[in-house]
Amino acid sequence: MAQIPVSPLALPLPNLPPLAGVRLATAEAGIRYKGRTDVLLAELAEGTTVAGVFTKNLCPGAPVTYCREVLQGGTARGLVVNAGNANVFNGAAGMRAVETTADSAAKTLGTTADQIFLASTGVIGEPLPAHKIVAVMDDLHGRLEADRFAQAASAIMTTDTFPKGATRTAKIGSVEVTINGIAKGSGMIAPDMATMLCFVFTDAAIPATALQAMLAKNVESTFNCITIDSDTSTSDTVLLFATGQAGNAPTEDPAYLADFRRALHEVLHDLALLVVRDGEGAQKLVTIKVEGAVNNGSAKRIALSIANSPLVKTAIAGEDANWGRIVMAVGKAGEPADRDRLGVAVGGIWMAQAGGVVPGYNEAPVVKHMQGREIEIMVDIGLGQGRATVWTCDLTHGYIDINGSYRS
Amino acid sequence: MAQIPVSPLALPLPNLPPLAGVRLATAEAGIRYKGRTDVLLAELAEGTTVAGVFTKNLCPGAPVTYCREVLQGGTARGLVVNAGNANVFNGAAGMRAVETTADSAAKTLGTTADQIFLASTGVIGEPLPAHKIVAVMDDLHGRLEADRFAQAASAIMTTDTFPKGATRTAKIGSVEVTINGIAKGSGMIAPDMATMLCFVFTDAAIPATALQAMLAKNVESTFNCITIDSDTSTSDTVLLFATGQAGNAPTEDPAYLADFRRALHEVLHDLALLVVRDGEGAQKLVTIKVEGAVNNGSAKRIALSIANSPLVKTAIAGEDANWGRIVMAVGKAGEPADRDRLGVAVGGIWMAQAGGVVPGYNEAPVVKHMQGREIEIMVDIGLGQGRATVWTCDLTHGYIDINGSYRS
Repeated sequence: MAQIPVSPLALPLPNLPPLAGVRLATAEAGIRYKGRTDVLLAELAEGTTVAGVFTKNLCPGAPVTYCREVLQGGTARGLVVNAGNANVFNGAAGMRAVETTADSAAKTLGTTADQIFLASTGVIGEPLPAHKIVAVMDDLHGRLEADRFAQAASAIMTTDTFPKGATRTAKIGSVEVTINGIAKGSGMIAPDMATMLCFVFTDAAIPATALQAMLAKNVESTFNCITIDSDTSTSDTVLLFATGQAGNAPTEDPAYLADFRRALHEVLHDLALLVVRDGEGAQKLVTIKVEGAVNNGSAKRIALSIANSPLVKTAIAGEDANWGRIVMAVGKAGEPADRDRLGVAVGGIWMAQAGGVVPGYNEAPVVKHMQGREIEIMVDIGLGQGRATVWTCDLTHGYIDINGSYRS
Repeated sequence: MAQIPVSPLALPLPNLPPLAGVRLATAEAGIRYKGRTDVLLAELAEGTTVAGVFTKNLCPGAPVTYCREVLQGGTARGLVVNAGNANVFNGAAGMRAVETTADSAAKTLGTTADQIFLASTGVIGEPLPAHKIVAVMDDLHGRLEADRFAQAASAIMTTDTFPKGATRTAKIGSVEVTINGIAKGSGMIAPDMATMLCFVFTDAAIPATALQAMLAKNVESTFNCITIDSDTSTSDTVLLFATGQAGNAPTEDPAYLADFRRALHEVLHDLALLVVRDGEGAQKLVTIKVEGAVNNGSAKRIALSIANSPLVKTAIAGEDANWGRIVMAVGKAGEPADRDRLGVAVGGIWMAQAGGVVPGYNEAPVVKHMQGREIEIMVDIGLGQGRATVWTCDLTHGYIDINGSYRS
């Protein structure tokens, strides 16, 4: 397929520092792509705890089924990710490919298969040539290095136009810990699931149960609040590994973990917005804030109805502050709303309030806002205290170009 | 905006014969469009019964709110439809525009406002200049004719690229009756509501309660089974008028009405598919059949999940039989499904069965089918007896073109 230009919303990859207990290597296995890396191996120190959140799609890929199972153990020694083939809908052959890859990585890292986590992304319904991963395993092992997060972020890309990473530090007690995250994803992104592939590493020592609780909670307000096209991938995976090498006392005490939670949320938030910034064909990053709904859940469903409306998204692509379509999307959400109390603001300027156009409303500053790269829509439902924020992108010719020819 | 070419899926308007008890006239009121008719007046004989089904959008237009109220009476003497302005989200001014229009039509037709039905379609959030409709009312009245269904079908168009009509005859007892229907709609079309504007007229004599029951039931399997873009208009309206002039005995007896029900279903089915054929940017008509679901409702939700998936729709636009995306859409529906029992056929050829590619599957005939204008997708869930059929179109550059610049 034709080269896709880098998203105009791209941000540079931040410097992702080495993390004690994590070593990485990438290789060109030639699974689908030629002339680029497509496999990532991560070696994790003994004692690493792990948390995971996965797609809610009921036809998940074999790696998701596998990860859900091994996650029960709560510990991890390795991670293998490949790009170009999602290993989804391959029946028994899909599970065999998973086992082959996990066995090979376990042998190479000197551990057992139940300590290996796997993720695959790319085409659905074509058998994954696991032997190509096995063939590069020794080479990967020989080149493991701590300072390879940038290379890792590139190796997991598919239709992504730029690599995605985020990093923060936090204090647990008096000990400073670091969190690094990488993510991939630019299409088939919708909420109500973990959304795309995201791998977060920290040198903190945190019990698996506390890790899982923090991950699940923070995914809800980050990855589960973004949508590109309302489609829910069969492979979406967020994994969080804590190597325990930083030297803090392993604790479940919420007070001790408060700063870590803050930093984890920031990493996940950064990564989720980077995915939106790389939305297929995206020209504009759109923030949708809903307030005044009957509760927060209702606000989120209304916000996602707006974010997923093709008519709203094409209007934004056309730089048209078409608040009529926003009202339509509020109404179709099926949540409590009263036409005659609704307000809509774009770029901070209220265009409609109490069910009609604001008298004397001046379109000029709104038109200017619509011409920018970052669009903000605010909707006041006028019924209660519920609020939510979601992020999406516009729907452009680029999306059609990319998805009308993905396999060719 | 630029002229939109006629849909390649267009069908010629059938001959819609005059109907006893219905007279029609159209005029150029200049509400939004110039140089074309944009208002329809229908005069209905005394004793006409009426049924209606409306959008489920919770922010409906003022005409919908109004029609729901006057529908309680069960009788009708007139219908006024305008194109170019939907009279939605105009607050109190919207209701005043409705009252002004209804009063004017009532006075002209010598009846009361509660016998007048109204529908408006077009831009949302701009005040409807009802005085422009009032200004042409006398002229419309002076030109009422029975043989004007084709003109009526054209006057109600907005982004439609061709006029839409259907006609059937049926026997009630020994009396032959006729059903004529016209419809408009090509975007903001999604199920779970009446969908777009559709007006059906018959000379049969049928009590309002029986008429309402038949309409509601048949909309469920026709208009509520089509989707263009998952968006739910704030104005969708289906009205069915029965003038009672054919001379049959007015009956609620289901056995007597069996043939009428058949003909009504056919008219609604024809019109619903014409709307899909005029889907904004549509290049292909897509029929999605789901069988083997746990029940019919589940089958319909799965079928609509496929029909509304941007990734499925862009793949079809790209003539790519990408059954992986179909599997994804089945999984995201949230309905009972088992990855390892799923089957997918395109153009009657099973590509995947029991959770994997069919051994020896030959892509050539499927590729040929995908290059055609009418695409058929069949999914076997493999769990039960539930089945459903829905219709949609592909998602193309044309959709972006049309909706990225609608107001300009």
